[in-house]
Amino acid sequence: MSTQVEPTPAKARRAGASKAPPERIVIQYPTPAVDDGLYPAKRVVGDTVNVEADIFRDGHDLLRAVIRYKPPQARNWREAEMVRIDAHLGGVRWAGSFEVDKTGRWEYTIEAWTDVFGTWRDELNRKVTAQQHDLAGELSEGVQLLQHATNEAKSKSDQALIEHAIATLSDEDVPETAKHDVALGPELFATLERIQPRHGAVSIDPPLAIEVDRKLAKFGAWYELFPRSWGGLQGVQSQLPRLQELGFDVLYLPPIHPIGHTNRKGKNNALSAGPEDPGSPWAIGDETGGHEAVHRDLGTIDDLRHLAEQAQQHDIAIALDFAIQCSADHPWLHEHPEWFHRRPDGTLKYAENPPKRYQDIYNVNWESPDWKGLWDALLKIVIQWVDAGITVFRVDNPHTKPFEFWRWLIKNVHDHNRDVIFLAEAFTRRSVMRHLAKIGFTQSYTYFTWKNARWELTEYLNELAHSEESEYFRPNFFANTPDILHEYLQHGGRPAFETRVTLAATLSPTYGIYSGYEHFENVPVREGSEEYLNSEKYEIKQRALDGPLLPYIQRLNQIRRENDALHDLSNVTFLDTANDALIAYAKHAPGNTIITVVSVDPHQAQEGLAIVPANLGLPPSFTAHDLLTDERFLWRIGANYVRLEPGIRQAHLVRVEM
Amino acid sequence: MSTQVEPTPAKARRAGASKAPPERIVIQYPTPAVDDGLYPAKRVVGDTVNVEADIFRDGHDLLRAVIRYKPPQARNWREAEMVRIDAHLGGVRWAGSFEVDKTGRWEYTIEAWTDVFGTWRDELNRKVTAQQHDLAGELSEGVQLLQHATNEAKSKSDQALIEHAIATLSDEDVPETAKHDVALGPELFATLERIQPRHGAVSIDPPLAIEVDRKLAKFGAWYELFPRSWGGLQGVQSQLPRLQELGFDVLYLPPIHPIGHTNRKGKNNALSAGPEDPGSPWAIGDETGGHEAVHRDLGTIDDLRHLAEQAQQHDIAIALDFAIQCSADHPWLHEHPEWFHRRPDGTLKYAENPPKRYQDIYNVNWESPDWKGLWDALLKIVIQWVDAGITVFRVDNPHTKPFEFWRWLIKNVHDHNRDVIFLAEAFTRRSVMRHLAKIGFTQSYTYFTWKNARWELTEYLNELAHSEESEYFRPNFFANTPDILHEYLQHGGRPAFETRVTLAATLSPTYGIYSGYEHFENVPVREGSEEYLNSEKYEIKQRALDGPLLPYIQRLNQIRRENDALHDLSNVTFLDTANDALIAYAKHAPGNTIITVVSVDPHQAQEGLAIVPANLGLPPSFTAHDLLTDERFLWRIGANYVRLEPGIRQAHLVRVEM
Repeated sequence: MSTQVEPTPAKARRAGASKAPPERIVIQYPTPAVDDGLYPAKRVVGDTVNVEADIFRDGHDLLRAVIRYKPPQARNWREAEMVRIDAHLGGVRWAGSFEVDKTGRWEYTIEAWTDVFGTWRDELNRKVTAQQHDLAGELSEGVQLLQHATNEAKSKSDQALIEHAIATLSDEDVPETAKHDVALGPELFATLERIQPRHGAVSIDPPLAIEVDRKLAKFGAWYELFPRSWGGLQGVQSQLPRLQELGFDVLYLPPIHPIGHTNRKGKNNALSAGPEDPGSPWAIGDETGGHEAVHRDLGTIDDLRHLAEQAQQHDIAIALDFAIQCSADHPWLHEHPEWFHRRPDGTLKYAENPPKRYQDIYNVNWESPDWKGLWDALLKIVIQWVDAGITVFRVDNPHTKPFEFWRWLIKNVHDHNRDVIFLAEAFTRRSVMRHLAKIGFTQSYTYFTWKNARWELTEYLNELAHSEESEYFRPNFFANTPDILHEYLQHGGRPAFETRVTLAATLSPTYGIYSGYEHFENVPVREGSEEYLNSEKYEIKQRALDGPLLPYIQRLNQIRRENDALHDLSNVTFLDTANDALIAYAKHAPGNTIITVVSVDPHQAQEGLAIVPANLGLPPSFTAHDLLTDERFLWRIGANYVRLEPGIRQAHLVRVEM
Repeated sequence: MSTQVEPTPAKARRAGASKAPPERIVIQYPTPAVDDGLYPAKRVVGDTVNVEADIFRDGHDLLRAVIRYKPPQARNWREAEMVRIDAHLGGVRWAGSFEVDKTGRWEYTIEAWTDVFGTWRDELNRKVTAQQHDLAGELSEGVQLLQHATNEAKSKSDQALIEHAIATLSDEDVPETAKHDVALGPELFATLERIQPRHGAVSIDPPLAIEVDRKLAKFGAWYELFPRSWGGLQGVQSQLPRLQELGFDVLYLPPIHPIGHTNRKGKNNALSAGPEDPGSPWAIGDETGGHEAVHRDLGTIDDLRHLAEQAQQHDIAIALDFAIQCSADHPWLHEHPEWFHRRPDGTLKYAENPPKRYQDIYNVNWESPDWKGLWDALLKIVIQWVDAGITVFRVDNPHTKPFEFWRWLIKNVHDHNRDVIFLAEAFTRRSVMRHLAKIGFTQSYTYFTWKNARWELTEYLNELAHSEESEYFRPNFFANTPDILHEYLQHGGRPAFETRVTLAATLSPTYGIYSGYEHFENVPVREGSEEYLNSEKYEIKQRALDGPLLPYIQRLNQIRRENDALHDLSNVTFLDTANDALIAYAKHAPGNTIITVVSVDPHQAQEGLAIVPANLGLPPSFTAHDLLTDERFLWRIGANYVRLEPGIRQAHLVRVEM
């Protein structure tokens, strides 16, 4: 990205002689910017946006630069000063910052100009320092610059100061040395820097965008449960006080809509259901309604509205599932047959990924002649739930629907209510996952469940935290889901569950668990599968918030809230441990440093070191206060012995205290 | 860069029902591209342009993609197939290539579309393989696709093939298995892939640009001499046969214009010149003329024209210096006073960098009200020299002149003669050097002279060779210049000169030396200075092509020409040597691998290893044919002992032979 204008030669030759010469300043590589500004960067309310760019011109003249930024719907641009941050390296990088204090689309640009007075003053200063004399020509230039500036003077005191300087520099009776002092005076300099015209100013055009979400977009603890196993929506509502006590911020419910009968799946995904089988909540729709309806066994829309209200009283957000697919009994199949795939012979195509067939589900046809009607109907459904108090949506398989649909949908929902959060459940190629985040998804499921070794976690987290991806891709580290019971959990017992939830909760500002995790549920439907045996997707369980891991999770959630260092991802630094079974990382926020050491071995005790590097800025020795156990250790920059033993502890989670 | 179109929601809602749904394919991160396509990438005639991009869409449909490219002035786009290169990694990267066979601005874009027939065939194939039956619905879809395609059939044989397939698939008497074979037939597949409509095609818009230069832009050996030390232009002409014999491609002459008298510099840059002192050629202009004139002691414009013609006969290009600055006696100072800086008191400002003053030189004022007149006058001068047969210009300090001026000048000169090469002499901040290359300079001076240690060379070369910079920044490695006699050469004797010219000639496709190098001239004007004692910049020498290093340089130039591996920069791989005083690197071109090992210690013998990694693709053992000495060694993948001793040899330059 550059601000340079390419003059067409013909134009440059023919234009009138009064035309100013082309711009001489280049502004390039601004950050934050996603794909050079094609997509907005993301921030949350309260963030400081640190802006950088390369700014330079030909020659040796001094430059100045500001960030110009504008809140959503604001009419006027505000400015923040930029400074050159690598002058000592002879570089060209400038930096500045501003705060974002409301949600919506902020814009920023960078403006840079040649500091004519500053350049003149700097050269004069060098000559005076070198004891050169006969600087009358230089001083006459200064008078000229000051005269130009008087037109810009905003106050009488500015004007008086400048006029005094002009008078002194022009007075033949004043000694030259006294003129130098006046010309180099710091007050005069500060005033001129403030008011002088911005000579040859250039800026980034068009401006760059920053989408600012509420803080829950970045930081939150999620709990997922199937309402039918908790007594429906009213049963869920009765769990709110306990969920708040446990420190959860989001309660995510799989689809709550009517479930189809035709080709309904039975227990353990059996092809045919028994008469008592409730079916998969993702086979949406029956004769009583589709995506706009609530399953009659769970309650009513009013129950949902009431649940959302009560949840808000408990500082909890309810997240609904948004899965664009229809059971064979979904009303749309006969109300809008044009929204579905039909073969030339007139038959409807069910979902399939040959040779696999999903006979209980029909996908919509995005290339339907009435695709606009379909888009509108889907938007209307989301808006309905937003109006019922739902501001978080977990979107099922967004990567199999058109990107443009999501961009359009999210923008329209945000125009309606900017607080809405969309979590993308896309387990697919990284480029596709990234693209969904770029076009608007607030958060994303990740590969976290499959990253269990130290090297895998380090590689993956460094990519999420320290590449351009960190500007727009917000991970949500679920430790398990109804679809993913990783082998690591199947075989590691309680220590494995402790390890994974500790990693999830301390590595990622947003993390989650699916109900059952706290009971160490770990039996797969068969060896080699990541599906649960007797999966809750196909049957109703009796659930209660009494799992033995809950106290530990409650403590984790409390620690997360109390320590700003755990509210960010890009602030992570991995530490050497001298043992591949131990992973250690520091996170730092102003006034708060957390060092986490986790054993990824659920079977055996592991000894090693937490090697604290000097560049973290910590004192030579410090108190390492283990927030999980309230123990205090004396740690230092350099190697610190650690021993983690299954059954005793899987992790240290220490706060650096002086 | 993306091809996606953001539909404005209002538009999407209101548009007629016939409007096609938005595009579903994303094309991003194409290469080659400089700053995402803001500037052209560079190639030379004969190059293969390897194009890559991320290409993906939502869902699982198969894609196809082509490069569309267009030579300069061509009207029609040509196409080259792309293939997915990381399918095994589940990736999204596609690649293809095309050749560039003429100079000028080529354009390319990428077009991608959904392979509707291929997707259908692939799904059918998976079902047939899984022995699924009852595929009548699928076959009816196939008939529909084939019917659409018949409109596209370009030949009768295509038409007949498709009609036969339609008839077979529609014939109730044909067994289903036979229908499968017809539907999956490879000839039918190939035909449909060729003719089917490009469903949902998207492309990169606007296209990307590639500037293609003649090969000398990338590969050449330069020799710099002051004509006044060689008997003027006619004297230089008499050296052409010898220069050709030595293998030089470019003969670069510092400014050949009249030299000012006022404030002329004397020997060793003395502030006042004696009556016999010739002055610095860079203080351009006297009463006989300025940049458009030839110094009367050197000859005439006709002599220059004749020199250029004769040089061409010897496969040598003459390079002139283009230094935009004027002596106090330059005609422009009174013909065009408006092109120079004047103080308010009417005095002209000479060049200065306070507290330094350059009283023999006046810079032009780029912010002159008549800046267009100045630009035109400068363009006219370059065009005059081009018309006299000069197609290479070494541009003095381009970084102190406006970028836009250079972009405009180079474009206009190229419109006049696309063969012209511009070498930027900018020793300044990297970003500025890079920017000059982006906006059009063909080649650039570099920091090479100051990179003498192994780690410095490795770091610098990896950056030049393996970053985006390699797409547009072509280094010219001068081992010395009239301004730069590095300390390394001052103290290292003949071995230092051998080392540096070997590094320059084998690391960079373009390199050069300034006359005197071959005589090991190494005395600075004073300790700590990089200026030569009795610099030729301020006095006339008696020169001849008889330096003792010339046979070695001649051999280097011959080896360079005969080995394609030395014609590129990005093909370099540095090897471990187990000794920091030894630097080793391999360069590979089709059928040609060169391994160079150089001692950077000019004082002592150094022993170490040339460790050949397996990933170079060489056989387990091979003949290492030292092209400098004609020795042959048996080398292997892994460690190879080397010993380099000053006075015996400073380098191995071996060709891998089987």
